[in-house]
Amino acid sequence: MQKHDPIPAFIEITPGASMSPEVHGWQAKCLQRLVRLGLPVPKSVSLPAFTVRAIAAGHGVDAEGILDHFGDGPLVSVRCSPASPDWGGPHAILNIGLNDARHARLRETHGETAADALYVRFVQSYAIHVARLDPDVFEDVKPGPGALREVLRLYEIETDDPFPQAPARQLSEVLRSMARAWEGTSARLLRAAKGAPADAALGLVVQDMAQGFGQGLSGSGVMQFVDSVTGKRRITGRYLGQSQGRAALAAREALFLTKDPRGPSLEDVAPEIFADLVRHGAVCRERLREEMQIEFTVEDGRLSVLDAVKVARSARAGLRIAVALAEDGVIPKEEAVLRVEPRALSELLHHQVDPRGPRDVIARGIAASPGAATGKLVFTSDAAQASAARSEACILVRRETAPEDIRGMHSAAAVLTERGGMTSHAAVIARGFGLPCVVGASDMRLDAREKKLTAPDGRVFREGDIVTIDGTKGEALAGVAEMLPPALDESFRLLLSWADQVRDIGVRANADTPADAETARKFEAEGIGLCRTEHMFFEEDRLVVMREMIFADTPGDRASALARLLPMQRADFVQLFEIMEGKPVCIRLFDPPLHEFLPSDREGLRDLAEALDRPLSEVTRRAEALSEVNPMLGMRGVRLGIVLPEIYDMQAQAIFEATLESARRGAPVVPEVMIPLVSARREVELVKTRIDAVAAMVRTRAKADFDYKLGVMVETPRAALRAGEIAQHAAFLSFGTNDLTQMTYGLSRDDAGRFMNTYVQQGVFPEDPFHILDVDGVGELLLMGAERGRATRKDLTLSICGEHGGNPESIAFCRKAGFDYVSCSPYRVPMARLAAAHLALKDLVLNKN
Amino acid sequence: MQKHDPIPAFIEITPGASMSPEVHGWQAKCLQRLVRLGLPVPKSVSLPAFTVRAIAAGHGVDAEGILDHFGDGPLVSVRCSPASPDWGGPHAILNIGLNDARHARLRETHGETAADALYVRFVQSYAIHVARLDPDVFEDVKPGPGALREVLRLYEIETDDPFPQAPARQLSEVLRSMARAWEGTSARLLRAAKGAPADAALGLVVQDMAQGFGQGLSGSGVMQFVDSVTGKRRITGRYLGQSQGRAALAAREALFLTKDPRGPSLEDVAPEIFADLVRHGAVCRERLREEMQIEFTVEDGRLSVLDAVKVARSARAGLRIAVALAEDGVIPKEEAVLRVEPRALSELLHHQVDPRGPRDVIARGIAASPGAATGKLVFTSDAAQASAARSEACILVRRETAPEDIRGMHSAAAVLTERGGMTSHAAVIARGFGLPCVVGASDMRLDAREKKLTAPDGRVFREGDIVTIDGTKGEALAGVAEMLPPALDESFRLLLSWADQVRDIGVRANADTPADAETARKFEAEGIGLCRTEHMFFEEDRLVVMREMIFADTPGDRASALARLLPMQRADFVQLFEIMEGKPVCIRLFDPPLHEFLPSDREGLRDLAEALDRPLSEVTRRAEALSEVNPMLGMRGVRLGIVLPEIYDMQAQAIFEATLESARRGAPVVPEVMIPLVSARREVELVKTRIDAVAAMVRTRAKADFDYKLGVMVETPRAALRAGEIAQHAAFLSFGTNDLTQMTYGLSRDDAGRFMNTYVQQGVFPEDPFHILDVDGVGELLLMGAERGRATRKDLTLSICGEHGGNPESIAFCRKAGFDYVSCSPYRVPMARLAAAHLALKDLVLNKN
Repeated sequence: MQKHDPIPAFIEITPGASMSPEVHGWQAKCLQRLVRLGLPVPKSVSLPAFTVRAIAAGHGVDAEGILDHFGDGPLVSVRCSPASPDWGGPHAILNIGLNDARHARLRETHGETAADALYVRFVQSYAIHVARLDPDVFEDVKPGPGALREVLRLYEIETDDPFPQAPARQLSEVLRSMARAWEGTSARLLRAAKGAPADAALGLVVQDMAQGFGQGLSGSGVMQFVDSVTGKRRITGRYLGQSQGRAALAAREALFLTKDPRGPSLEDVAPEIFADLVRHGAVCRERLREEMQIEFTVEDGRLSVLDAVKVARSARAGLRIAVALAEDGVIPKEEAVLRVEPRALSELLHHQVDPRGPRDVIARGIAASPGAATGKLVFTSDAAQASAARSEACILVRRETAPEDIRGMHSAAAVLTERGGMTSHAAVIARGFGLPCVVGASDMRLDAREKKLTAPDGRVFREGDIVTIDGTKGEALAGVAEMLPPALDESFRLLLSWADQVRDIGVRANADTPADAETARKFEAEGIGLCRTEHMFFEEDRLVVMREMIFADTPGDRASALARLLPMQRADFVQLFEIMEGKPVCIRLFDPPLHEFLPSDREGLRDLAEALDRPLSEVTRRAEALSEVNPMLGMRGVRLGIVLPEIYDMQAQAIFEATLESARRGAPVVPEVMIPLVSARREVELVKTRIDAVAAMVRTRAKADFDYKLGVMVETPRAALRAGEIAQHAAFLSFGTNDLTQMTYGLSRDDAGRFMNTYVQQGVFPEDPFHILDVDGVGELLLMGAERGRATRKDLTLSICGEHGGNPESIAFCRKAGFDYVSCSPYRVPMARLAAAHLALKDLVLNKN
Repeated sequence: MQKHDPIPAFIEITPGASMSPEVHGWQAKCLQRLVRLGLPVPKSVSLPAFTVRAIAAGHGVDAEGILDHFGDGPLVSVRCSPASPDWGGPHAILNIGLNDARHARLRETHGETAADALYVRFVQSYAIHVARLDPDVFEDVKPGPGALREVLRLYEIETDDPFPQAPARQLSEVLRSMARAWEGTSARLLRAAKGAPADAALGLVVQDMAQGFGQGLSGSGVMQFVDSVTGKRRITGRYLGQSQGRAALAAREALFLTKDPRGPSLEDVAPEIFADLVRHGAVCRERLREEMQIEFTVEDGRLSVLDAVKVARSARAGLRIAVALAEDGVIPKEEAVLRVEPRALSELLHHQVDPRGPRDVIARGIAASPGAATGKLVFTSDAAQASAARSEACILVRRETAPEDIRGMHSAAAVLTERGGMTSHAAVIARGFGLPCVVGASDMRLDAREKKLTAPDGRVFREGDIVTIDGTKGEALAGVAEMLPPALDESFRLLLSWADQVRDIGVRANADTPADAETARKFEAEGIGLCRTEHMFFEEDRLVVMREMIFADTPGDRASALARLLPMQRADFVQLFEIMEGKPVCIRLFDPPLHEFLPSDREGLRDLAEALDRPLSEVTRRAEALSEVNPMLGMRGVRLGIVLPEIYDMQAQAIFEATLESARRGAPVVPEVMIPLVSARREVELVKTRIDAVAAMVRTRAKADFDYKLGVMVETPRAALRAGEIAQHAAFLSFGTNDLTQMTYGLSRDDAGRFMNTYVQQGVFPEDPFHILDVDGVGELLLMGAERGRATRKDLTLSICGEHGGNPESIAFCRKAGFDYVSCSPYRVPMARLAAAHLALKDLVLNKN
């Protein structure tokens, strides 16, 4: 066997050097590519990760040997080169090698001011980053002739040592200091937050200084070719004469790069250098397959490219850049798809508070629904509706919301609640509406009767005061905030169409209203996976009839109320089917407990007594009789459907008549009828018998045929356990993971907010299980249900329709379990489509390797 | 091979005949044994089941052949002989063969009156049971000389046929009619209710009539040797001269059997016959191994024993009979154990409404806790306590009960609620107290404010009115009812001690208070399987401190309130340990939501504000802030233990200090500390760490050592699913099947009452799953939890402690699953012990066969 040379502790970055991002770092590898592309990169040496580790562990470093590469009395910089460009790292240190002797020579070549300024800056930088002195030490140093002496004096006082003069000592100290900084606790935490593994490695790059000072055109600058916030193609950056590093970005007197009415530009001053930079930029983009920011120096008219780093970018910019690279053929479409984080999409769907603007936070809570909106404070749903009638944007503030607040929420620009968690009523509805929402803002004090809200700092806000809700960050801000508009442009559409080409699990939307359905269509959902019909009964005109139905004394009275609801329900479904144009619609039969439809306060009961023409005492008594200790576990769902079967009969009739009507209008649909809260096979059997009978009746009356599917919403642990026998009567099973999570944990999502923070902080739960699907517990029930259901019926359609439906983690889980589709709120459909595509692509890569 | 004779269609019952209860019926087999024992049984012929089936199916029967056995012109009776004596069957028909000719002869031998009466009775009986005429047909027939003619005339009019004269035709019609009656729908339903299989067979017995009429001493009677209600040895029965069948039982002029001050007796009139009967009775008991009732006839001084049937008996009589038979060596102890139905025991533990007395039912509900009590109506817990202070028995009526009603319930003689099911608060607590209780009596109307109760028939009952609650039947009765006392005598103790000798699964009691523990000891529970500590905090003096703890602003305030609760808790445990004398005690740490300890009405809140010296508005606001939408799924159990760990710390300290105190007093105990409502491993880990620390602290302070076990109450489906990892930190798992059922079904036991009846009636659920363990769903979680837990830890102790613990079905399930013990309310311990013994004995029998 061939004998290998020992691995060198450092290598010069040459086109032929053997280098990899894992060993030498992404930045070093990038520099090598720039070198290979013929860019004017100053001579550079790479210290691989194992060398840097050894340095951090206390081993010596051959600084002399490194400096030998750079000729006689060189000045060098040290930059960090972690394995991923996203992981940060210690500051670059410039001008290493500068000492009294070299300073004297610089004075001659570049003049006293420039030479002094360079030396002062190096001593300070060394003192702070290497000797770890407090930056305050140099606070009182005045710029000018005496500054250098003063800085050297302060250094000596603080360190008990004169400023080191030997370049090799300077370099070895810098390297040691940077190697150790990488291992520090806060650096570890910072990069872990960016996804770095615990053993993330750091390489270092030592580079010959290109001075940026000189007689001829000299200076330094930074240039990029897209806008970091919008992602649009536009040259941005700055150039500053007689400067080094990234100084141009901070200096007021810096030049623009392209011609600019506000003042002179690099393009004016040095058109050839500008043209070279643009050319270099184009090469970088194409060959590095990424939008790069270029750091450059001009020394006596000679251009050097010191470094190229990935352009920092907002979510919307990231998407545009990825799509543009793919459209230009630089990267394949699949890679563009993979480059956009699914969760980042939600930022593009809504207005956002501009991160560059000021923020006056008055309450913090849970970021329950993304986006931002500004409006006048209102404290009741009535006030919200009145505000909407005046076309005034309003912010609805409630302790928590209840079903009767839905119209108020729909009228509001954003919602803020004192209580609740990620899956409280307010949060769920707001996400459905795409409404910015902050819940569980328990640090503010809400006085609903007095209509005032007190911030933790004591400031009081009253009805009509202007506030902004930032649902993305979970904050309420005083006054108007600067906003960024949504970014639902062609790039967005294109990226998702590419995602759909590889995606292999369906994505539907949960949609209760025509508006929801329109949104679902806009985001190209493949159908409606969950249409909750109860919201339809909260409309003012229906609520009255609904209440009559609830208070009916005889089956006859109940039937007559239901007969009045029938045409309204039918119209709902006709409209829904039309919007969905034949795409599947899964309709969940009536689910909530009846008391949700009754007023909860005395005044409301009095109105109701009047409307029903019954004594208040009777109405109160019967409302009380309907109340429940644990409504979540009470008389609702299929239990209502069995005890008062007329409700489901009416709904089935409405669905089937709408199906026929829809077919006549040219949008034939196969509706999917879903039974909620099932816990036993016989429940399904009983409901199926009646619904089949209703279908037969509708067919006979209309002398027309239609198809439909009957399925079960699996929300109780028992339904999952008994899925085998339940599937005997069900064409599909859709897992309602909200309720399933509540019951598996014995945890009410309405009440969990009070301790969920403590629980997640103490690691009792790794995540809020209402937010991230609990794979171990709830997940096992999903798998059992799926397996047992399919064992009975091979072609059983499986899906989830809980709040988890849109989460990448849940989609991964469902895809692995062989589910047919996930269903989520319309505004999460894009994220779900993209997340599903990511999973398919990652599987493809795994299968290839 | 030997050639078998064809099986005969009937055989004469002789000592050597080949007969079995399965083929010929229990009664025929019993007659054969009487014959073998030398008792004077009239000649009898048995028709086996296959013959009877053939007759029912329309095949002819050789009535002539049967009658040939009985000589010339015989009179015979036909009695039914099902395979089990408990399955009922058609009426016996006497005097078959009686016709005009025979009547004429009888006139000569027995006189006109007796002959006429016999013939009239036979014709009527034949008309009704064989010709199926309406009994009303003979309503207007006056007894006396013309009766016979009239009866024969009516028969002919109604049937269009003269009364059949051929004895063979009479007999074949009787046989056909009885065979068909057995196959009728109502007969099938009746015997199915008594446990008969669908294909239960009937044999028939044709027997020579012993007349009971004659010149010498003639008559008939019935005799038994134990009291049917008490089970005590005592000869009871009647004898009537010149009579047949069981006529003596109904006739006022019948004689007593033994000497009686009220009138002449058989013992007086015919001491030899009486002595013979007693002798026959003793033989029967010993050889038939059962207390028998003997049907006998005396004809001209000649005694015949026509039949012997199992004595009908109450539950308490059944137990005494079984024990006496075993003590007399007639049957083995194991058989005595098997002869008593476990569920029958609960009737013996409490006063019962005497079934022989009148009942004036004013409300019907669910029989939630057995026993009966009479008292004055009260509508509040305060009134109940005041009543108890006056030593007046009272019946507490509430819409439903809440934890603050516990003292009121304890003061009441019985409880009646309008709402709730088998496992509602009222039901659970009442069973724990052994208090008669009816819940879900929704047909009555309760007006708590007006303190009145309106029965379905409109009668109004007010505070102070006397009512009786029959918790065994689930009824409320107006006024005082006649009562039977409990039957906890030596027989009871003996039977259960025999049961314990074969039982192979432990039985503990759920006991929260010293009184519970005393009851548990009385019923010989092997320890406490569930001690709910929260009830301890509802005592008046503790409630105040508890509320201070809840309203504490700082951890310091909370600590000081808890410090005051500590000695009270410690005293509770010391007392409990003393009563249990070293038997294991499993203590569940604090479980309920804190708001249960706060007043729910405005007045209570005002008192509380005063007691705490805080403004009412603040107290109200904080009480509201603690309220929950679904308290069952809220901030309780281990969640409280993690968010406010000081509570568990205090409890652990109290338990451990009581353990040391108890050891000093000579009752060393290894307490078992149980964590409620666990859903994740980490919860157990966190609590265990703190509790271990408290134990170390107590050991150090006291310079003494003690042992304890820490375990988990498995009440959430997730805890069952994750039992494998939970068992890493738990020495035992106890399944709380109440909550587990609630969560598996998504069904609140407090709210299920509203539809449970409909559900069970429609067969949606085969049984109320809170009453009978749902083996398919909840049971699977139990099995999974047990299996996964034991896979982690072989010596893991497994038990159930929910309300199901005492049910024979649950015990069978747990025994099969290898559980160590079941725990149930103290009053169900005897039933559980007996049920467990039954299971072990049945297994023994199965293993032998």
